[in-house]
Amino acid sequence: MIVSALATSVGINLGLTVLLAAVYSLLRRRPPYVDVYSPRRPYAPLEPWLAAAWRRTEEDIHAAAGLDGVVFVRIFVFSIRVFAAAAVLGVGVLMPVNFLGDQLRQIDFSDLPNKSVDLFSVSNVQDGSNKLWLHFSAAYIITGVACYLLYYEYKYISGKRLEYFMTSKPLPQHFTVLVRAIPVTDGGSVSDAVDKFFKEYHSSTYLSHTVVHQTGKLRRLLNDAENICTKLANIKSVRHPSGDPPGKFLGIFGRNDLVGKYQKRLEDLEENVRMEQSDATRSRQEVAAAFVSFRSRYGAANAIYIRQSDNPTEWQTEHAPDPHDVYWPFFSTSFMERWISKFVVFVASILLILVFLLVAAFVQGLTYMEQLETWLPFLKNILEIAVVSQLITGYLPSVILHFLSSYVPSIMKLFSTMQGFISVSGIERSACNKMLRFTIWSVFFANVLTGSVLGQLKIFLDPKEIPSRLAVVVPAQASFFITYVVTSWTSIASELTQTASLLYHLWGSCAKCCKRDDSKPPSMHYHSEIPRVLLFGLLGLTYFIVSPLILPFVLVYFCLGYFIYRNQLFNVYSPKYDTGGRFWPIVHNGTIFSLVLMHIIAIGVFGLKKLPLASSLLVPLPVLTLLFNEYCRNRFLPIFKAYSTEALIKKDREEQSKPEMAEFFSNLVTAYCDPAMKPIQRSSNSDDRTTPLLSSA
Amino acid sequence: MIVSALATSVGINLGLTVLLAAVYSLLRRRPPYVDVYSPRRPYAPLEPWLAAAWRRTEEDIHAAAGLDGVVFVRIFVFSIRVFAAAAVLGVGVLMPVNFLGDQLRQIDFSDLPNKSVDLFSVSNVQDGSNKLWLHFSAAYIITGVACYLLYYEYKYISGKRLEYFMTSKPLPQHFTVLVRAIPVTDGGSVSDAVDKFFKEYHSSTYLSHTVVHQTGKLRRLLNDAENICTKLANIKSVRHPSGDPPGKFLGIFGRNDLVGKYQKRLEDLEENVRMEQSDATRSRQEVAAAFVSFRSRYGAANAIYIRQSDNPTEWQTEHAPDPHDVYWPFFSTSFMERWISKFVVFVASILLILVFLLVAAFVQGLTYMEQLETWLPFLKNILEIAVVSQLITGYLPSVILHFLSSYVPSIMKLFSTMQGFISVSGIERSACNKMLRFTIWSVFFANVLTGSVLGQLKIFLDPKEIPSRLAVVVPAQASFFITYVVTSWTSIASELTQTASLLYHLWGSCAKCCKRDDSKPPSMHYHSEIPRVLLFGLLGLTYFIVSPLILPFVLVYFCLGYFIYRNQLFNVYSPKYDTGGRFWPIVHNGTIFSLVLMHIIAIGVFGLKKLPLASSLLVPLPVLTLLFNEYCRNRFLPIFKAYSTEALIKKDREEQSKPEMAEFFSNLVTAYCDPAMKPIQRSSNSDDRTTPLLSSA
Repeated sequence: MIVSALATSVGINLGLTVLLAAVYSLLRRRPPYVDVYSPRRPYAPLEPWLAAAWRRTEEDIHAAAGLDGVVFVRIFVFSIRVFAAAAVLGVGVLMPVNFLGDQLRQIDFSDLPNKSVDLFSVSNVQDGSNKLWLHFSAAYIITGVACYLLYYEYKYISGKRLEYFMTSKPLPQHFTVLVRAIPVTDGGSVSDAVDKFFKEYHSSTYLSHTVVHQTGKLRRLLNDAENICTKLANIKSVRHPSGDPPGKFLGIFGRNDLVGKYQKRLEDLEENVRMEQSDATRSRQEVAAAFVSFRSRYGAANAIYIRQSDNPTEWQTEHAPDPHDVYWPFFSTSFMERWISKFVVFVASILLILVFLLVAAFVQGLTYMEQLETWLPFLKNILEIAVVSQLITGYLPSVILHFLSSYVPSIMKLFSTMQGFISVSGIERSACNKMLRFTIWSVFFANVLTGSVLGQLKIFLDPKEIPSRLAVVVPAQASFFITYVVTSWTSIASELTQTASLLYHLWGSCAKCCKRDDSKPPSMHYHSEIPRVLLFGLLGLTYFIVSPLILPFVLVYFCLGYFIYRNQLFNVYSPKYDTGGRFWPIVHNGTIFSLVLMHIIAIGVFGLKKLPLASSLLVPLPVLTLLFNEYCRNRFLPIFKAYSTEALIKKDREEQSKPEMAEFFSNLVTAYCDPAMKPIQRSSNSDDRTTPLLSSA
Repeated sequence: MIVSALATSVGINLGLTVLLAAVYSLLRRRPPYVDVYSPRRPYAPLEPWLAAAWRRTEEDIHAAAGLDGVVFVRIFVFSIRVFAAAAVLGVGVLMPVNFLGDQLRQIDFSDLPNKSVDLFSVSNVQDGSNKLWLHFSAAYIITGVACYLLYYEYKYISGKRLEYFMTSKPLPQHFTVLVRAIPVTDGGSVSDAVDKFFKEYHSSTYLSHTVVHQTGKLRRLLNDAENICTKLANIKSVRHPSGDPPGKFLGIFGRNDLVGKYQKRLEDLEENVRMEQSDATRSRQEVAAAFVSFRSRYGAANAIYIRQSDNPTEWQTEHAPDPHDVYWPFFSTSFMERWISKFVVFVASILLILVFLLVAAFVQGLTYMEQLETWLPFLKNILEIAVVSQLITGYLPSVILHFLSSYVPSIMKLFSTMQGFISVSGIERSACNKMLRFTIWSVFFANVLTGSVLGQLKIFLDPKEIPSRLAVVVPAQASFFITYVVTSWTSIASELTQTASLLYHLWGSCAKCCKRDDSKPPSMHYHSEIPRVLLFGLLGLTYFIVSPLILPFVLVYFCLGYFIYRNQLFNVYSPKYDTGGRFWPIVHNGTIFSLVLMHIIAIGVFGLKKLPLASSLLVPLPVLTLLFNEYCRNRFLPIFKAYSTEALIKKDREEQSKPEMAEFFSNLVTAYCDPAMKPIQRSSNSDDRTTPLLSSA
């Protein structure tokens, strides 16, 4: 890619970004769009959004978006710090050195726009030149900076997590344990078995339990009822505001006939639901799992961390999630079931990556104009137009990749669901890990390796060759990834304008009868956003030595993200759960991976550049980085897994004598009741609806 | 190697084995040798030893050698079962098929002694022959048999372990926790910090604590005192029985002068020890570690499995070992210290393996006569004598390897000590793991790979090629390993005659003045014996497909081992500790490794033999084996790590009302006192001495 093509891409994306931001600034206060741009607040804030996003403190974010929101913003803070340092080093030192090198051509400042972007990369430095020691030092410096900041952030967030726990009001999940693989003797019920076991071994702290039931059928019935309710509500809402004569809008059916028909169907469903519920309670459909509540947090911790049964595959305990966070539909319980599904999901994830690799191989073909012309000869004339050619090589592949990747998170979430996680937050955290691996493989490695030949994947079967092979293929894709980063500006700005939900909202306003209940603000999809953000960190770090030109663009991305997400966490997304910052370890591990990958590439680059001493002296760097990671795993990770005796007992004692605890415990007994099992009047309606439809039916 | 050379080797070793067994049978009842052959009993048992070893039940072994002894014998039982099945398959089916193949030569039964042993190996089967499907089926059958038996043994031993716990009398280690990395505020003592912390957070179950002191100097002083005591005792014992005139035996010194001089030195030392002890107790030399005892087993478990402090690197808790099992000299306590030493030991272990590989490369050179003749041309004439040549190629390398390997276990134990294990059993278990890895690398791989070229080690850098490369090099070393197994018969028989300790005993009888306190029976070195036994399982399994001729020899080894060790565990070795069968998981993992290695080699062999379909169809076998292993890890391993709530509480309740518990708890308070800190009258003498020397001084 030549400099002018890059400039075109930067120009287009900068323009689009500014345009989208302007559109947002214009629309966000207009009444019809407030539902889209500030669904969390009934009003549109008056202050300019950029100023507001800047002004807000971390406490505000914590209050608005929970600790997970804080962690998400800290990713940007951390990245801005790292890439500010990296950009100073890269643009200030490495880029001039690279540009003044003469490996690729003699120094010649004329006609800069037609020069290749590669002139700014390490390839342009003379082989064996002593200037490469600058690159070598830069690798050590940036690793030091990144590790220091990683340590600082881990410490900061784990402190926040403890603080959050110590100041939280009593929460059901702290007093409750999920027990799975409950062995049942012939004829006995699960409920009796649980009661007997915990009365025997936890007599002083055991409070109550709720057995899980199979409610798949019930859930389907309730869903049908919900749909009919929505339809009924729409019919009613169409009549009231517009006052159309009946029969006109709804075609051949009379409106009243339709209402009657729906109400009849609703009554039948309601009857079915009641029967199904009483069936379920008559223990016919008990699942070998139960939520067991205790009188103290420490009592619950005892049941979790000390193995309960002599047979380790029975009475398996784990932390209970927040009652609203429980994912009821999949409730696999037996040890073998979950174990097999884990293996199946593992295989399926690999297959998904392989399928995606094939697709990416095709997309990458687009960057090679000649290949495209061979495939589609009739496009030859069009492709020879300069702008089209620049658009296609510089822009189209990124767009296609962005588009395809958007479907993967939901598949990953499905996989995690199959693995037997029982909370939405657990599913999303697991999906986040899977997405991170997927992103690294399917976006980074797939593009780096298939950009040339798919067969290059086999370099991983020859570990000794990895550094030198990566040192060849990674720099070759520098221009692709620079445009990828630049394209991402638009995609992050379109986060601001919420294009999809805007269109959906407009469509909803046009066709009222299809309007669904969109009064709830959406939630942040951490499992797809975090890996996406981390990918740019990966790109920035891996290209830090090779092609420092990418750094300012990455920095711009993180700055944009910082402001935009701070705004969105306030106005658009409302938290669906609070994991207490448990996404941070994923971020930490992802960054460590990026650093080590950068080291491996740097080792290869110095080898290729005929400076083997620098290669050898770089070997301790990944080792030190991994040791640092191991230290952090010991020092901080346990805090994200469990609270300590110290914290638990302090918190228990603090509340022991509080009068409101009696009420809390009486609520705790019913907190983990499956919503599908609740009496029908409340079950099919969300709490914030004002007119309970089913009960009026 | 030709059949006659193998026959020579079998003949020599069978002869030596029978000879050693005969020597043992003759000597074991003679009074001077009872100390060597039955140190655990004051008398020599009358029954023939082989019959006695056969007759004894597992309960007897449990009573005599603890659960670890039972586990050790179960290794032989398991191996005999597996290799009985393997030998039936291998010798009954595979070997005839191999021998009737015609890849290496035409069938010709004449002159069998001069035929190569390779005729019995898979190499002799025609490439692409359908007979190879017999080998394929054999791989599946033997894996199935081995996995079934592994499951059965794991279940059996974990059952034994639980039974052992449930029937044990109250033991200090079940009620006690070792706390390390205790944070101390300025000026406060460790003891106060421990007391405050556990009174605060474990008020209902906390009983007492014992802070660990730095007693290195004290230990050295006590050791000196002990040495002088021994010398004094020897001088006295020389006088009494022989009644030599003074001055004659002891050269220029008069005997009384010498006694006086030693007694003076002893008094000085004693004074020093007292000063050192009072220094240590005045908390100047407190270490940030303590043994904390609880009123119940469940209370101790609470302190171990729930993280104590908000900072995971402080107040780290773990199971306390048996008080007699505590390894006092090394008592590293801080988190960082142990963490760094772990890394250092890891590097040192790798270096040790590398050094050993070089040595093994030289030894292996001996199997290639031509090479030896090049190195040492003056030996040419001798080497051309048939017997010498057969001895050197068939026997000498094994002897050298056996000899060198005997020094490694103590180095590995030193490494484990440095890692910060605090019990002898913990150190030996860790050393056992290290030894197993060492044995696999330095005996198996080193011989397989350096037998041809040291550079072949690099095949591990090219994972895809591993099966086919192993399929070439492993069969090439079949004859070496067959003689290795045959040689091991002698080495296991010399275990019976205890050659080293016999010589030591005889030397001690000759030179009475050097006689040391050998009245205690020795203990079994599980960390060196278990890996050695597992090596033969590895050899048997890896050569099962390639060269089934090895199987009967391996089976004989295990049968010999079964009888000999059952005898030795009764008469010679007394248990030093009881881990409750925690060595079994090492055996299980080792066997799984052997199976997978066998599969990889088989995949390579079928590839080389031009039966790619069989290669592909074998790929699921290692996957299934690893899944089986993963299942066992979940199903059984937790039982070996900790006892369950169920077991702990049952056991606690059972004893709650027993009157002897009061006495137990009062003893528990002082159970974990460092022996070096005990009052001097008792400290420098082992308990079974009748004359307390220091107190008489």
